[in-house]
Amino acid sequence: MKLMDIYARMKKDIAYVERELEGSVYTEHAMLKETSLHLLKAGGKRIRPVFVLLSSQFGRYDVQRIKHIAVPLELIHMATLVHDDVIDDADTRRGQLTVRSKWDNRIAMYTGDYIFAKALTVATELSNPRIHQILSSAIVELTIGEIEQIRYFFRTDQTLRHYLLRIKRKTALLIAISCQLGAVASEADEDVSEKLYQFGYNVGMAFQIRDDILDLTGTEKELGKPPGSDIRQGNITLPVLYALADPSIRGELLAEIERIRLVDGQTDVTPFLRMIRSGTYVQQADQLSSRYIDRAIEALSGLPSNRAKRDLVDIAHFIGDRSY
Amino acid sequence: MKLMDIYARMKKDIAYVERELEGSVYTEHAMLKETSLHLLKAGGKRIRPVFVLLSSQFGRYDVQRIKHIAVPLELIHMATLVHDDVIDDADTRRGQLTVRSKWDNRIAMYTGDYIFAKALTVATELSNPRIHQILSSAIVELTIGEIEQIRYFFRTDQTLRHYLLRIKRKTALLIAISCQLGAVASEADEDVSEKLYQFGYNVGMAFQIRDDILDLTGTEKELGKPPGSDIRQGNITLPVLYALADPSIRGELLAEIERIRLVDGQTDVTPFLRMIRSGTYVQQADQLSSRYIDRAIEALSGLPSNRAKRDLVDIAHFIGDRSY
Repeated sequence: MKLMDIYARMKKDIAYVERELEGSVYTEHAMLKETSLHLLKAGGKRIRPVFVLLSSQFGRYDVQRIKHIAVPLELIHMATLVHDDVIDDADTRRGQLTVRSKWDNRIAMYTGDYIFAKALTVATELSNPRIHQILSSAIVELTIGEIEQIRYFFRTDQTLRHYLLRIKRKTALLIAISCQLGAVASEADEDVSEKLYQFGYNVGMAFQIRDDILDLTGTEKELGKPPGSDIRQGNITLPVLYALADPSIRGELLAEIERIRLVDGQTDVTPFLRMIRSGTYVQQADQLSSRYIDRAIEALSGLPSNRAKRDLVDIAHFIGDRSY
Repeated sequence: MKLMDIYARMKKDIAYVERELEGSVYTEHAMLKETSLHLLKAGGKRIRPVFVLLSSQFGRYDVQRIKHIAVPLELIHMATLVHDDVIDDADTRRGQLTVRSKWDNRIAMYTGDYIFAKALTVATELSNPRIHQILSSAIVELTIGEIEQIRYFFRTDQTLRHYLLRIKRKTALLIAISCQLGAVASEADEDVSEKLYQFGYNVGMAFQIRDDILDLTGTEKELGKPPGSDIRQGNITLPVLYALADPSIRGELLAEIERIRLVDGQTDVTPFLRMIRSGTYVQQADQLSSRYIDRAIEALSGLPSNRAKRDLVDIAHFIGDRSY
């Protein structure tokens, strides 16, 4: 499989970033070291560092420099996960106990703050102020996205635009700046970093749409958590919006969502899942995801044809097709 | 009173920073704007911005430049207050409802994250990497301090060293770097910024000790909250440590703290307050606070004798004497 080939080829640098990630959260404070490493060791695809490493190959590639982007971006992502788990009352993530469940919500909040602060410390090793401006603006948008997510829980009157703006802030933006900053930090031309931003943004949108689809169509085994977690939490995702726009199912679906809301998601959501899986709602969402992938690949068209570009295209296709 | 004279003299620049503070949290997001402004409007002494403004007078004073330090430091302080209120289940602060009580814990967590991110955005306007390194390292220590505070709740076996390290991280460090960064950002000499750091550190230690004393000796009217809030939460402060070191009261005090711990602070703490107010424990703590004030003033000794230096000395004395 192409994705594994890419990871295999980048193995050395990915391993280097991984060690730097671990080193970055090092502290003599035993509990914080434990909570932070607990998260890191839970793994993850490290998709943001991979994008940083690939994008930086459009400039002067120097992994010892680029780690100051790759590490903070993964750490910021991790910090938001810890805070999200507090919000979601999540007990497990990637099959492991969450910080809030293994310790408590308070520890999780401060662990998130700590990892976040460590991310910044690593980034300050780079002196280009533009990098810090891009990074901090993205974090502002990210936090707004988090609040928006809460605000729109169970809101069946939201539009497609609300949804897209929310997943942009929540997911696409951080992937977009991973690609952009990889290029900026390796001193690629401005228009190269701009194109990579566009690539990352579109890939990120597709990624989140796929993620939202999988929560509705996957099995507990595939997902590592029961399907329907989103609706239990109140998160109205793209296929649900398409279903709500269909008059033949809307009334029934509204009643079902209301039933779930009234018991705070503590219920069997099989009837809900059955409704969404019927019709073409998932298929429509899939089509929008594919359109984002197409746009991502288009964004790369003006860039030099190198190995990194071919890898980015392969990853984009993989994300578009991903079924687990 | 001298302190009011200082504020009066700096009125124009403080008002400017105040407007910039409000502008800095501006967002089209109605709820976040409301939660952030709610906090800002609750007021506060703005002691960090005042220290930044005074310290920057040892270099090239330019308030339009210095605001990029003064604003972030106050915002970071505010962000930690919002997160602290979540931890402390606090319903009011400065006589106003807290964000967590007016909205909820989740909103408060993300409001804190948002204000924090906004702080960084403002600071990125300055390109000196040293500023960002100092800032981010201090934030790391601050988050460790928060976790430490939780970890030492109700721990009667802690030493004076634990307490001092905790208040350093929680309070003194941010005041220290307010003074240091005011000087760095206005391009004062390295040894000037170092001395100002020492001044701020020592003033900050005295400030927190005074704060901890007041929680034990003040009235509800003076404090804006009932006395004994610290022990209800489990926070063992300096006078309590001195009392625990006194064999004539130790046994009785341990039993009383255990009684408070077992009911999670939901009890009348008058017997505890009476014990701490007896003897010389508060007086001993006061003496240590005074020593920090002396050291703060000593730290300024090598600096040019200007208006700003006299103001810093006056503020230090005010903090040492403050009884509300």
